[in-house]
Amino acid sequence: MPTASGHTIAIPASRAIGTDVYNLDGEKIGKVEDLMLDKTDNTIMFAVVGFGGFLGMGEKFHPLPWAALDYSKDTGGYVVPYSRAELEAAPANSIKDLTRDDGYNARQEAYDYYKVEPYWH
Amino acid sequence: MPTASGHTIAIPASRAIGTDVYNLDGEKIGKVEDLMLDKTDNTIMFAVVGFGGFLGMGEKFHPLPWAALDYSKDTGGYVVPYSRAELEAAPANSIKDLTRDDGYNARQEAYDYYKVEPYWH
Repeated sequence: MPTASGHTIAIPASRAIGTDVYNLDGEKIGKVEDLMLDKTDNTIMFAVVGFGGFLGMGEKFHPLPWAALDYSKDTGGYVVPYSRAELEAAPANSIKDLTRDDGYNARQEAYDYYKVEPYWH
Repeated sequence: MPTASGHTIAIPASRAIGTDVYNLDGEKIGKVEDLMLDKTDNTIMFAVVGFGGFLGMGEKFHPLPWAALDYSKDTGGYVVPYSRAELEAAPANSIKDLTRDDGYNARQEAYDYYKVEPYWH
């Protein structure tokens, strides 16, 4: 259901996965491939965003703070407040590496790079 | 990666979805159909567990606290510490109703019913 500002709070993971992601210039930069969940504390560690390229063989995935993805009714996708250049230079890795060390390294790298306030303490 | 107790912390949502769920008697009771996410605060509101029956037409889904699902290597599924009778009498609803009122009602009902300590304040 939308909040007063028109944003949806409760969102099924299956609906978020596959949703297109746009940059602040309105360019489609990829889509939500997955969401990394923390089994021990009910949190979403980061969104796993694919920027295209060859699926499978060596594709890199970008961990992005879930809070940085803002749903836009106009595009039917998520908008992130970053430029193409910022996104292309951002941390990216294989899914296997994103889950390494309980995902904490990838999470820290992403929140540092995008300068998003950590939700954890 | 497994913790000292052998539990995985970082888990991709796409891997959790579709995983079988067993009760404390080792009976398969259904599977994880989805995970309800809170867009505003990085949390997992509840797991959406289907108990089978006819898909689509009127199937009811059970909201379960994510923390109540314990991964078991033996079964390759999640074990919940409830009996079949407890699960059958548990809150259940359509996906649409589970997202109503931002999902807060369904979440409260689930945490109350299963007597799980709320992760929110």
